[in-house]
Amino acid sequence: MERKGVLYVINGPNLNLLGRREPTLYGKATLGEIEELCRLWGRERGVEVRTFQSNHEGELVDLVHRGGDEADGIVLNGAAYSHTSIALRDAVAAVSVPVVEVHLTNTAARESFRRHSYLTAVAAGLVMGFGPRSYLLALEALN
Amino acid sequence: MERKGVLYVINGPNLNLLGRREPTLYGKATLGEIEELCRLWGRERGVEVRTFQSNHEGELVDLVHRGGDEADGIVLNGAAYSHTSIALRDAVAAVSVPVVEVHLTNTAARESFRRHSYLTAVAAGLVMGFGPRSYLLALEALN
Amino acid sequence: MERKGVLYVINGPNLNLLGRREPTLYGKATLGEIEELCRLWGRERGVEVRTFQSNHEGELVDLVHRGGDEADGIVLNGAAYSHTSIALRDAVAAVSVPVVEVHLTNTAARESFRRHSYLTAVAAGLVMGFGPRSYLLALEALN
Amino acid sequence: MERKGVLYVINGPNLNLLGRREPTLYGKATLGEIEELCRLWGRERGVEVRTFQSNHEGELVDLVHRGGDEADGIVLNGAAYSHTSIALRDAVAAVSVPVVEVHLTNTAARESFRRHSYLTAVAAGLVMGFGPRSYLLALEALN
Amino acid sequence: MERKGVLYVINGPNLNLLGRREPTLYGKATLGEIEELCRLWGRERGVEVRTFQSNHEGELVDLVHRGGDEADGIVLNGAAYSHTSIALRDAVAAVSVPVVEVHLTNTAARESFRRHSYLTAVAAGLVMGFGPRSYLLALEALN
Amino acid sequence: MERKGVLYVINGPNLNLLGRREPTLYGKATLGEIEELCRLWGRERGVEVRTFQSNHEGELVDLVHRGGDEADGIVLNGAAYSHTSIALRDAVAAVSVPVVEVHLTNTAARESFRRHSYLTAVAAGLVMGFGPRSYLLALEALN
Amino acid sequence: MERKGVLYVINGPNLNLLGRREPTLYGKATLGEIEELCRLWGRERGVEVRTFQSNHEGELVDLVHRGGDEADGIVLNGAAYSHTSIALRDAVAAVSVPVVEVHLTNTAARESFRRHSYLTAVAAGLVMGFGPRSYLLALEALN
Amino acid sequence: MERKGVLYVINGPNLNLLGRREPTLYGKATLGEIEELCRLWGRERGVEVRTFQSNHEGELVDLVHRGGDEADGIVLNGAAYSHTSIALRDAVAAVSVPVVEVHLTNTAARESFRRHSYLTAVAAGLVMGFGPRSYLLALEALN
Amino acid sequence: MERKGVLYVINGPNLNLLGRREPTLYGKATLGEIEELCRLWGRERGVEVRTFQSNHEGELVDLVHRGGDEADGIVLNGAAYSHTSIALRDAVAAVSVPVVEVHLTNTAARESFRRHSYLTAVAAGLVMGFGPRSYLLALEALN
Amino acid sequence: MERKGVLYVINGPNLNLLGRREPTLYGKATLGEIEELCRLWGRERGVEVRTFQSNHEGELVDLVHRGGDEADGIVLNGAAYSHTSIALRDAVAAVSVPVVEVHLTNTAARESFRRHSYLTAVAAGLVMGFGPRSYLLALEALN
Amino acid sequence: MERKGVLYVINGPNLNLLGRREPTLYGKATLGEIEELCRLWGRERGVEVRTFQSNHEGELVDLVHRGGDEADGIVLNGAAYSHTSIALRDAVAAVSVPVVEVHLTNTAARESFRRHSYLTAVAAGLVMGFGPRSYLLALEALN
Amino acid sequence: MERKGVLYVINGPNLNLLGRREPTLYGKATLGEIEELCRLWGRERGVEVRTFQSNHEGELVDLVHRGGDEADGIVLNGAAYSHTSIALRDAVAAVSVPVVEVHLTNTAARESFRRHSYLTAVAAGLVMGFGPRSYLLALEALN
Repeated sequence: MERKGVLYVINGPNLNLLGRREPTLYGKATLGEIEELCRLWGRERGVEVRTFQSNHEGELVDLVHRGGDEADGIVLNGAAYSHTSIALRDAVAAVSVPVVEVHLTNTAARESFRRHSYLTAVAAGLVMGFGPRSYLLALEALN
Repeated sequence: MERKGVLYVINGPNLNLLGRREPTLYGKATLGEIEELCRLWGRERGVEVRTFQSNHEGELVDLVHRGGDEADGIVLNGAAYSHTSIALRDAVAAVSVPVVEVHLTNTAARESFRRHSYLTAVAAGLVMGFGPRSYLLALEALN
Repeated sequence: MERKGVLYVINGPNLNLLGRREPTLYGKATLGEIEELCRLWGRERGVEVRTFQSNHEGELVDLVHRGGDEADGIVLNGAAYSHTSIALRDAVAAVSVPVVEVHLTNTAARESFRRHSYLTAVAAGLVMGFGPRSYLLALEALN
Repeated sequence: MERKGVLYVINGPNLNLLGRREPTLYGKATLGEIEELCRLWGRERGVEVRTFQSNHEGELVDLVHRGGDEADGIVLNGAAYSHTSIALRDAVAAVSVPVVEVHLTNTAARESFRRHSYLTAVAAGLVMGFGPRSYLLALEALN
Repeated sequence: MERKGVLYVINGPNLNLLGRREPTLYGKATLGEIEELCRLWGRERGVEVRTFQSNHEGELVDLVHRGGDEADGIVLNGAAYSHTSIALRDAVAAVSVPVVEVHLTNTAARESFRRHSYLTAVAAGLVMGFGPRSYLLALEALN
Repeated sequence: MERKGVLYVINGPNLNLLGRREPTLYGKATLGEIEELCRLWGRERGVEVRTFQSNHEGELVDLVHRGGDEADGIVLNGAAYSHTSIALRDAVAAVSVPVVEVHLTNTAARESFRRHSYLTAVAAGLVMGFGPRSYLLALEALN
Repeated sequence: MERKGVLYVINGPNLNLLGRREPTLYGKATLGEIEELCRLWGRERGVEVRTFQSNHEGELVDLVHRGGDEADGIVLNGAAYSHTSIALRDAVAAVSVPVVEVHLTNTAARESFRRHSYLTAVAAGLVMGFGPRSYLLALEALN
Repeated sequence: MERKGVLYVINGPNLNLLGRREPTLYGKATLGEIEELCRLWGRERGVEVRTFQSNHEGELVDLVHRGGDEADGIVLNGAAYSHTSIALRDAVAAVSVPVVEVHLTNTAARESFRRHSYLTAVAAGLVMGFGPRSYLLALEALN
Repeated sequence: MERKGVLYVINGPNLNLLGRREPTLYGKATLGEIEELCRLWGRERGVEVRTFQSNHEGELVDLVHRGGDEADGIVLNGAAYSHTSIALRDAVAAVSVPVVEVHLTNTAARESFRRHSYLTAVAAGLVMGFGPRSYLLALEALN
Repeated sequence: MERKGVLYVINGPNLNLLGRREPTLYGKATLGEIEELCRLWGRERGVEVRTFQSNHEGELVDLVHRGGDEADGIVLNGAAYSHTSIALRDAVAAVSVPVVEVHLTNTAARESFRRHSYLTAVAAGLVMGFGPRSYLLALEALN
Repeated sequence: MERKGVLYVINGPNLNLLGRREPTLYGKATLGEIEELCRLWGRERGVEVRTFQSNHEGELVDLVHRGGDEADGIVLNGAAYSHTSIALRDAVAAVSVPVVEVHLTNTAARESFRRHSYLTAVAAGLVMGFGPRSYLLALEALN
Repeated sequence: MERKGVLYVINGPNLNLLGRREPTLYGKATLGEIEELCRLWGRERGVEVRTFQSNHEGELVDLVHRGGDEADGIVLNGAAYSHTSIALRDAVAAVSVPVVEVHLTNTAARESFRRHSYLTAVAAGLVMGFGPRSYLLALEALN
């Protein structure tokens, strides 16, 4: 596979509210700040990091398809869709670039319906529980 | 929380077909008529009632976010997404205004996959089984 | 069905302790105060509201039978028996007047054994989560 | 029902990648080629076959509604949404034209989460396992 | 065991409404008529048949205890308590006279929560599905 | 339905070993003796009772079909096939004469895999737990 | 595999009663008429279609073995055995010719115990819900 | 909490038959003898022990409420209701004095439906398996 | 039990295809060769080994009955019926000679529906996973 | 059984951290202090109490074996192994001296995986929920 | 694989108590006697049989690893750890010599938690139910 | 918490075989090489990395306790014990330093019994699927 020097960071539903939504659980960083951290990480390493967010399952499927064409790897926080979307799973399985699943929080320590992620079995790997640093570790793993 | 004098009424998938879809089950009132009833209820009480409908899970998430910013409360009929959408649940949990779940029919008396709603546990309350009056009772509860 | 101008409000086990039992969960209103609210609602509308409470499953069955003969509708908070009593369910199904199920709290947000109510599928409708106002909304729905 | 001489063929998420996505599983035909086969089948029989694809659950619901108005029947490959979408199921149940469910592969021989389809119980029938010919057999069944 | 020449027929909750409650399901005979049939059966055979009905689980437990002391056998239609009452089961297991379980209807053909009876495993036998004749066959079996 | 004056008694697998097989559980009567009891019951009432036994599921299906044509009713002890055979269930549902399910023992007091019978929900009724008398009570119920 | 110009159509238990058994569910066509339709389809295409029916699980296993030797493909309606027979499944998996599963009705819309078929995962494909036309579509798929 | 010098010992359904009911399982001591042992234990320690038994779930709920007002602690053998009564659980949770659950036998070594007790999670503690001594150990724990 | 010097080896459904059916799984030995191995084992030890195969559940029940009369022990490979046949289980439990269950393959390493065998709990013992040698070890165990 | 005047108190994994580990849950007493309490109890009654702790499942099995030889009874807090160790259960079942299970906390009020203990069904009895006093009550019960 | 002429026989927890522990279930032979039988079997065939027992899961893992290096095959009675130890399973899967699982008793006829063994799916085969002879048959199978 | 400049890397059962055990699954690196990588990572950052491996559950519990005293954080690959050990979970929960769970492979893509880890809910975070790099990312996360 030819190197494109691009990594995608895709965030799923409700993550646009980060910093305002249950900050004791999710922390005070906004999504914008996390995305900036990721791009900064890229600039230091000569990799272009492109960031996306959508509340729409179908758009996330589209974005994974596009990332499969344009990027060398994808960091994906599927949020709630991780637990319910076989469509997103199939998208991850269909693209040939590695996809790393991330979560800000340790989902295993939360409600039982968050314990299973459809994405994990088709992802290259999983990093979770380290807040915004989860994204940087995932980018590190892809690099 | 400052009062804005606005309530949202958000309807989920397939409710645009009300009146035509299985009328013995859902009644003959169209969605337009129910929305008009809600607005009328508002006009009588000096509250602005804004009504929305979408078949798209992501748009419903967006609408709940927007209602969290612009309204004092939300009446939400998630329809089929009530039973499958953790994304919608997370949206309801993320906003700070009260959300009341409504259903036209008594979903407990229908198929087993309609018995569980992800929304109920994060909603302020639930009103179901009274047809179009369910909406008015929910508005009453929010007022 | 001939109109009798009477509505029953029947409360189940442990509700006699309201106001003393876990007030952070159930609120500070006593059962007597809630029953008085219901009767007041009736006096304003010219309807006789009769209130009952029992900790005995069999007495609740008897009361539903009696309400089927003497009232135009029944507001029923089955409390713990909602989750375990097929006998109470059969009583609700056997009478020909509408029965509305109410709960003070949002039972979906509590222990898993409170998530299923045998009564809901045979009730006319359900109102829950609004504290003492749940009773008034249920009476409103029956009227 | 008046005959309109139109049949819809609606394809769900990730099927736009057909031919590139796991070809040993799904075959080498692209979605474009399958859609052309369907239209050809229609031209030979004087039926207009209109083809659609979307990765968005809500758009698929919209398309089924539209097909209910404009077509005599619908061939629907819900792909991943077959297994998770009650909204799509309700759309199929709400329209009055027959909907035939198709799958390229034999989903019963795959992962356990693909064994149940919400669509089947409300579809007119099911054809699966014959690759692109599944579509033609489904069109045949509708004709 | 000394013969007392007495048989008990005990009926559980809501059976006092027989003839009025869902007659297409339970038939038009009232409980009084069925009890009279049982006593008539006894008079023809020189056996005293005593009949009881209660909506109270505790009273049914008491009646089974009393039947254990005063009768040679018990015909028990536990109705809804058959499906929920371990107390009634323990009472049946505790007495030394045979108890025959009866049901008017074929409970296996109804709701899933009526399929299991706690009583059956400790009863001497079971007769169900023959309407009022179920009682006479059960008395016959005890005689 | 025209009366033919014939009743079938059909016994399933392993019942040919009655009297020899676990007599503490099934009693000492042989199948031949039970069948003779049934025929005697018939002779006393002017009804021809025909008895059959087979270890083959398919033959039992055939016998139920034949009983549907030749008899006024069928007493069926499906033995082990009661718990596993949907084919036998479908045969019982397909014939228009009443079928009464019998068991010698109280199957609810045995292994868990004997607790569910596919036949019960489509049978006219059930008699079990009274040993060979179960057959006579079932014949009585059919008469 | 050398072409033999022969296709088998094998029908399972109770299908010999077609036309008489629950015609509102299964339609008015008899099995003989459906078999004639299949043979006619064959004559028009120069293929010999041989038809079989048995209520015996073992005979169906034998027939599938024989079809594996003598035919180019098998259309199999396992009826009730579809849901219970691993033996039939193993037979289908053991033969090297393609087997297409058919059902007259949409089994997903019926009792829960009819939702799973052991045959589907080892069949080449599945056609169901189109009444007698299901057989012709299955033959078409095999051809 | 002010000390009242009173402890309640409350026994549930069928325990009035102790000594007669399955003595190999429950021992030969009657309930009267066990209650006398408890009162004797109290007299030796200057504590008034009051004993109660009822077969009625509602009366047990009433007794727990009363014990909450009049006693410093409650020893509760809920017997069969331990396994089925959320009402009794709610009563235990509602009173502010400690409730110790006791059982004569080791319920974990019996039928599976006796393995779960609704009371345990809200009781202060549990003592079981030591026959009548279980009561004395529980009183000791409360003292 | 008097010694008869005879052992039965009974093989269930689809085993007649051994050597042709999935040889990578089941090996290349035909059933005839395995049966000859068993008879040879017998000849060397002065025991008559009689071999049988049937695809019919009822015939296997008959054969076990017959083996109970004519043999000193039975080696039984129930194949698919091991997993579904309570009738075969009851036959094994009914005969008084020891029955040893065998499987060619390690069924625990295959599909989940092959993990449970109804036969094991009533068999004298189990040998599996050693191909044709499983039969000889089982004969050895019986000798 | 000859009296040896010795009782074992065996503590399982992580209990060596008592006093430091989650003191709001487990209390501030260290294991050393609890063991001293037990020995003191013994000295007052002329019984030698020997105390042990291990984090190793196998050592706990060894200790139970040794207690079976050297002691008159065993107080066992299996901690986490209570919920997972069939080996420890078999050890308890294998020794002939009584073993009393204890827990400091009420495990029924904690995580669901702590609700089942393999030890309970084979223990002589169970005491839980009373903190360090649980041990003394258990010793009392053994004495 | 080079032949080493060595076989390991490894026994798991509580088997050191054989002969003393529940002799009606496990027989009167001690572990020492069984091990001697195995070594004798080896001497007769010129194979060195080395025997081990441990109550420690970790030691059993170590022993399987060592057997993988030093022996040609392993006979493993995992006892209680068969049902709970994925670590032991992984050890069996990790070594390249064949491992045969044995049990003295027929575990399928015992408690439900003994029905599943993690070892079976990764073992070469299984022999169970023949008491001490199970070991000899397993050695025979390995030879 | 005072900084000690020490990190623990603890590896569980069978990981001592890395490089030899299923290399296509686990890779060719030996445990020694991975541990050297970790120590090298530490030397470059001035952190002392101490590495441990054990096949014994109890020793792993001990090591976590010791790490809680001597280190600033723990990287833990519990291997098979992750899925079965509540004792290890309790150890992780009991220590006050952060523990990061790692796995070489993506356990979600393997057998179903590897999908749940008791450790995750009490770990600070989880990194899995990146082979030996998983350890370095986990150390990075702790630093």
